[in-house]
Amino acid sequence: MFYTLDILGTIAFAISGVLVAFNKKMDLFGILIIAFVTAVGGGTLRDLLIGNTPVSWMLDMNYTYVILGAAILAIIFRSKINYLRTSLFLFDTIGIGLYTVVGIEKGLNANLHPIICIALGTMTASFGGVIRDILCNEIPVIFRKEIYATACILGGFTYFLLNELPIKTDVVFMISGLVVIIIRLLAVKFKIALPNIYAKEK
Amino acid sequence: MFYTLDILGTIAFAISGVLVAFNKKMDLFGILIIAFVTAVGGGTLRDLLIGNTPVSWMLDMNYTYVILGAAILAIIFRSKINYLRTSLFLFDTIGIGLYTVVGIEKGLNANLHPIICIALGTMTASFGGVIRDILCNEIPVIFRKEIYATACILGGFTYFLLNELPIKTDVVFMISGLVVIIIRLLAVKFKIALPNIYAKEK
Amino acid sequence: MFYTLDILGTIAFAISGVLVAFNKKMDLFGILIIAFVTAVGGGTLRDLLIGNTPVSWMLDMNYTYVILGAAILAIIFRSKINYLRTSLFLFDTIGIGLYTVVGIEKGLNANLHPIICIALGTMTASFGGVIRDILCNEIPVIFRKEIYATACILGGFTYFLLNELPIKTDVVFMISGLVVIIIRLLAVKFKIALPNIYAKEK
Repeated sequence: MFYTLDILGTIAFAISGVLVAFNKKMDLFGILIIAFVTAVGGGTLRDLLIGNTPVSWMLDMNYTYVILGAAILAIIFRSKINYLRTSLFLFDTIGIGLYTVVGIEKGLNANLHPIICIALGTMTASFGGVIRDILCNEIPVIFRKEIYATACILGGFTYFLLNELPIKTDVVFMISGLVVIIIRLLAVKFKIALPNIYAKEK
Repeated sequence: MFYTLDILGTIAFAISGVLVAFNKKMDLFGILIIAFVTAVGGGTLRDLLIGNTPVSWMLDMNYTYVILGAAILAIIFRSKINYLRTSLFLFDTIGIGLYTVVGIEKGLNANLHPIICIALGTMTASFGGVIRDILCNEIPVIFRKEIYATACILGGFTYFLLNELPIKTDVVFMISGLVVIIIRLLAVKFKIALPNIYAKEK
Repeated sequence: MFYTLDILGTIAFAISGVLVAFNKKMDLFGILIIAFVTAVGGGTLRDLLIGNTPVSWMLDMNYTYVILGAAILAIIFRSKINYLRTSLFLFDTIGIGLYTVVGIEKGLNANLHPIICIALGTMTASFGGVIRDILCNEIPVIFRKEIYATACILGGFTYFLLNELPIKTDVVFMISGLVVIIIRLLAVKFKIALPNIYAKEK
């Protein structure tokens, strides 16, 4: 089941890359690269920092197939993508929940400190979008607004809190992922953002 | 002979970096860094993803000497570089043909899937230019126009097709590199680009 | 003592990241990330290129604590930071002196050529700022003006010159770091820049 969710998240990330690349009028090759980078960029950075090479997506071809498939379908049906906006948002949210926990577990396997593991989880979930924005010559959107990485960080803390209790690892995994997903959904629904530290200066 | 071609390609890439850095009015240090990054950036990313460290250019000083030499000459004779534009274009094209096949072979040595090897070849040939453009605060040119990466990808497929036939590896190597070079030359001569997916929307 | 200097340098780099992120109106999360990247980005790139993973800051939590602490204090007391500008400049200068020598030693431990070691030292000292500027969608400032990387490079040459003489490693370490610091201070005080290669073209 986790694998299915992982694939759904990958699809959502790839399509979000296609949409940004469209806005930049990139050519076919550019669009495919941005789709790819958005989907695997976070995990790649995590694997590089840990020293986990060759990086994951090079060893499991399903990622490549799914990303190329999703990107090509998104290009063909681009005029209809708006109808899917809600589904895509849900997939993306599931994706960051899952990616966060996957990143944390990779950090634990490398015997790293919990805070570093949380950072790796957040990186896995959110840095594909950062690299996407850099390649598109934008200031990364997650640095400017929205609860996104914050949801991942809170999910990460949940993971280590629950880990102290006598709960099965699988359940800890699921609850922490759900915390990320729920915080993200609530933040978007109620338009919650980080406190604006610039307000007073206006 | 391959080594000579490799060096020619490196020179062309370094000089293309110098030219872009000029346009951005960078200082001497900036120009040298951009020259370096353009020449070795693709191979560095490939080595990092595979886990092939320390990365290649750190172990063979000839790259450093050639890049610094080419960049300094390009700075000194910058008013004459226009006369060399055709030679530079040829060197650059030879460079991507060769870099593509070198990248593929590195992927094969790491036992990676053919599609991943083709991706590594394309990366080796084209991501130096991508990093150059990012450092210069531009959307990477290969994401927007021109057959460039596409030539590398087609050369990569040629490699694996020929590999099925009873042909010596050296010959496969050369033919695939030539395919990249010829496609790139034809594309530039006849101004062939990827199909414009935005046309209908105007 | 070196460790104390290292921490002072890290603090200065983190705060310089906060200041740049402020100008870009980033949110809290963005500011913290930019602080982090500015402080550890150069060392991370060095570790990745050498293959020294997991990268250093993941194994010593003090960096994380110091960076988060410095960034949060900088955010809270942001209206007073101007009074600290001179201290911050001094810390930053001490930081690049120290980081340069640390980077060189890491290169030597990996048995790399002196020129590569100097490049690694310069990278350690200056690429945190480069990554900061890229994330903030700017052309990296060190590519355009100021003696910064040049000071690191000259300090690096000093290191290898002194290493030929019968001087204790610790002393070589300190003198080279001081060379970086003094060149940087003199360059800023007397507004020395690299020769302007564009002058004639105006």
